[in-house]
Amino acid sequence: MSADLSRLSLNTATTKAWTLREAVDGAVRAGLPAIGLWRDRVQEAGLAEAAKIVADAGLRVSSLCRGGFLTADDDAAARAALDDNRRAIAEAATLGTRELIMVVGGLPGGVDLVGARRRVADRIGELAPSAAEHGVRLVLEPLHPMFVADRAVISTLGQALDIAEPFPADVVGVVVDTYHVWWDPDLQHQIARAGVAGRIAGYQVCDWVLPLAADALLSRGHVGDGYIDVPTITGWVAQAGYTGDVEVEIFNQAIWDTPGDETLATLTERYVGHVLPHL
Amino acid sequence: MSADLSRLSLNTATTKAWTLREAVDGAVRAGLPAIGLWRDRVQEAGLAEAAKIVADAGLRVSSLCRGGFLTADDDAAARAALDDNRRAIAEAATLGTRELIMVVGGLPGGVDLVGARRRVADRIGELAPSAAEHGVRLVLEPLHPMFVADRAVISTLGQALDIAEPFPADVVGVVVDTYHVWWDPDLQHQIARAGVAGRIAGYQVCDWVLPLAADALLSRGHVGDGYIDVPTITGWVAQAGYTGDVEVEIFNQAIWDTPGDETLATLTERYVGHVLPHL
Repeated sequence: MSADLSRLSLNTATTKAWTLREAVDGAVRAGLPAIGLWRDRVQEAGLAEAAKIVADAGLRVSSLCRGGFLTADDDAAARAALDDNRRAIAEAATLGTRELIMVVGGLPGGVDLVGARRRVADRIGELAPSAAEHGVRLVLEPLHPMFVADRAVISTLGQALDIAEPFPADVVGVVVDTYHVWWDPDLQHQIARAGVAGRIAGYQVCDWVLPLAADALLSRGHVGDGYIDVPTITGWVAQAGYTGDVEVEIFNQAIWDTPGDETLATLTERYVGHVLPHL
Repeated sequence: MSADLSRLSLNTATTKAWTLREAVDGAVRAGLPAIGLWRDRVQEAGLAEAAKIVADAGLRVSSLCRGGFLTADDDAAARAALDDNRRAIAEAATLGTRELIMVVGGLPGGVDLVGARRRVADRIGELAPSAAEHGVRLVLEPLHPMFVADRAVISTLGQALDIAEPFPADVVGVVVDTYHVWWDPDLQHQIARAGVAGRIAGYQVCDWVLPLAADALLSRGHVGDGYIDVPTITGWVAQAGYTGDVEVEIFNQAIWDTPGDETLATLTERYVGHVLPHL
């Protein structure tokens, strides 16, 4: 009997060497029903062509990554960021996904973290009408606190939910990425809170391996190779009522240097062993 | 008019190349009234001799670093850790400080973060009577979440306060280290909570510089060189009623390679510019 892969999604960042078409073909060969897209891969193929490639293959698009970078403290940069996010919203709609992952940006040259966080909340408010109009959800991604200075001033799931709270659950959601949130003493509670609010828009899995890579962004590993208790966190996500796709998103040079089919075989095996029994 | 350095303390880790005696002499030359000691420097000098060197120089000992590493999941290792912590408590008393900084340890080979955190709370309970008997406070240090796997499963000030709560405030406290907690969206609130509870046992300052060093532990910089809003956080600590010493604790190879007197001049200048006006 083959395992149930009906919720497993390949995030294209995991097979970085592959074009969009290669990733789609690889996912299909591996028996996966879904794919998480990054905008750079979509732009290489062209938006209409990308949408066609995915649709022709019969894959779901579990998410589009990414909008965000909303922390600029000057008006011109802020307007440019909002414009780019409106384009991302339209792209998500064209690609047939309602989940647009938002990496909200770091500190734009100063130390005013409180102010940067306020700007993010304000600008999500500015984007919400456009998202609602396109049937797209702005999915706030808390990033690990080691990325707060340069990448995302949303650092915890609780903070993401606080920012989401004023908006309808189908317009602003959150994504749970094990790499970013596994350390949080309040994680179980906040996942439950996200479930009650109907805001869990995605679940991404990978592992925390040591030592950290020279570029800390690339320190992720396959599920089961590191310190994250993925079974327990998966159980919390399942108890919170999440029934959507599980994306495997790994940034790691050694994995990028591995043939894509091999990576897909490994991530599928780890999904079946560490995730599926707890969903 | 010279600046008021009456609350500035040199943590010996900042001038790593110096022996204890050299660090004491350097602090005195720079006009500092206090020093934060690491156990390795104390052991090199010998405990009684170390206590004498510091006392003869007329310095306060703002803290002893460190106890902890309490997460072992086998009995022999746990017993050894408790014994070592009892020795550290006695050393703190001998050195004339009541603040023993606790770095509680990471994951000892497994992925059971919830269990490791429970063991820390239990073992703080086992050590509390010994601490109380010696007039020493166990000072829980939340470490940045990037160290949760290998160094400390206490990741936020709120979590440290939750663990401290069952114990008297003069037996279990917390230390606020800007490097470890600056990213926390709940920081202002938790500092205020710590103040109300009378548990702020120390305040340590340094900055978050990018890129992260290959050894992430060594990524700290002088206050003012990075992304941390030290004035704002200092204001929160002051508003919480903290009147104790401010330790400068920096792990950074370039700073360790700098002559100690130069490092002391820089950290004093930064203290006067970024910290003192907000105390």
